[in-house]
Amino acid sequence: MEIKSKIADEVRRMKRCLGKVPGLAVVLVGERRESQIYVRNKVMACEEVGIKSMVTELSTDCAEAEVHDAVMQYNKDPSIHGVLVQLPLPQHLDEAKVLDAVWLEKDVDGFHPLNMGNLAITGREPLFTPCTPKGCIELLLRAGVEITGKKAVVIGRSNIVGLPTSLLLQRHHATVTVVHAFTENSKQVTCEADIVVAAAGLPNLVRGDWIKPGAVVIDIGTTPVEDPSCEDGYRLVGDVCYEEAVSVASIITPVPGGVGPMTVAMLLLNTLDAAKRILNFA
Amino acid sequence: MEIKSKIADEVRRMKRCLGKVPGLAVVLVGERRESQIYVRNKVMACEEVGIKSMVTELSTDCAEAEVHDAVMQYNKDPSIHGVLVQLPLPQHLDEAKVLDAVWLEKDVDGFHPLNMGNLAITGREPLFTPCTPKGCIELLLRAGVEITGKKAVVIGRSNIVGLPTSLLLQRHHATVTVVHAFTENSKQVTCEADIVVAAAGLPNLVRGDWIKPGAVVIDIGTTPVEDPSCEDGYRLVGDVCYEEAVSVASIITPVPGGVGPMTVAMLLLNTLDAAKRILNFA
Repeated sequence: MEIKSKIADEVRRMKRCLGKVPGLAVVLVGERRESQIYVRNKVMACEEVGIKSMVTELSTDCAEAEVHDAVMQYNKDPSIHGVLVQLPLPQHLDEAKVLDAVWLEKDVDGFHPLNMGNLAITGREPLFTPCTPKGCIELLLRAGVEITGKKAVVIGRSNIVGLPTSLLLQRHHATVTVVHAFTENSKQVTCEADIVVAAAGLPNLVRGDWIKPGAVVIDIGTTPVEDPSCEDGYRLVGDVCYEEAVSVASIITPVPGGVGPMTVAMLLLNTLDAAKRILNFA
Repeated sequence: MEIKSKIADEVRRMKRCLGKVPGLAVVLVGERRESQIYVRNKVMACEEVGIKSMVTELSTDCAEAEVHDAVMQYNKDPSIHGVLVQLPLPQHLDEAKVLDAVWLEKDVDGFHPLNMGNLAITGREPLFTPCTPKGCIELLLRAGVEITGKKAVVIGRSNIVGLPTSLLLQRHHATVTVVHAFTENSKQVTCEADIVVAAAGLPNLVRGDWIKPGAVVIDIGTTPVEDPSCEDGYRLVGDVCYEEAVSVASIITPVPGGVGPMTVAMLLLNTLDAAKRILNFA
């Protein structure tokens, strides 16, 4: 991927000039299979581009203080420039409190409420834009899709994908509608969109007849579904019924392989940016 | 207004129990006529309910440090529980910097990015919700309008009205679309809405044929338009062409007199809440 080789170049330049490389720390709580895979992918991607990575794994039943301590340790570690807590956390942990502990300058996931507020407010700039929404926009821009003035529908309003994606599309001057569990007639609303971003986490929610002919469809859903014929015993399924939508949409991203790799690339970019800012390296 | 008499009751109870009343401080920069009127209305409303108010007026060409100092003085004043800077500020002042100086616990306008982030994020609560959006929802609820699942269109995406109104409507589970200057075919988009909130600041932008029959229309626009026949030489005009819309909408708020007084009431409520929180008074 072109973007990764650019990041690798920058990392090498930083190493040459400063004798340092960017560092990413991940705190993983519990043994959720997808989370483990996501973390593994992030670590492997770091290795690819020369970014240092560290992972702290905590047990499912760990105390909130342990998570907090792990985050604080990385906050204070000068070799670490990006800190992220893999979500979701086990139910007994207070996600908001844990995320608030990540220092703003190291919040490479962009989930701190101050980053989110600055993403929402016109004229302000967040230190970091959440990776999946940033990857979405990157995909649209690379495909030459005009965003300004277009009708965009974001399906799903999670804090980590749906919400920031809607805010970011609005920053790019789309006319954004957010569809969620309470929306009456989601199909009809989605049918009118020039750009559909599906992030509900509901396999095959979006059928072919939900798509306006020629619309651009970004599928962020990645739900593991059991499938004995696959090596791991399951496969990842998107929110969009690809077989139906592919003949209606002008562009559609596949699952797996569409937004996922771009999300990881954006995390590397955010980590590089964090290191540059902290180390005052232009 | 019923809500004001309830606030007055609470202020009396606080005075009886603690010997203290809530205090609101307003910083007004420059001589913009509407701003002066808004501030006067806020001060008068405070008097009505027994809230103490203080106003610092600074000249149009004042230095940013002066505004900052005025804010900081009120931040530190224990008799003041709410601090607001009347917007818009003169061009040479950095609005973001000035708003960031207001202490979170006294940010009764709710414009601090951390408050805005917490308004946007599901599962979090801002310390304060911006007054006009809060007043809008209050009007809808009092009129018995169902919000959950309904299509809401917010016209305009200002940081102080459009943005927080869209976030708040979404919190109440509406399906929200934000219409702005870049929106293609705003009329068609607005036509589909069950709830229309007009906050563009463009007199008579929304015509009768923009409104779906039976829709609820909240007009937040208040633009002063010259009118020699009026006492002050001008009158306030809404974003909605009232004469046309009134026969199509099921409910419509007039300008002046609709959202304005409710906005002021919400400011009093936020100030009361701020004082209760700071003084630990239940």
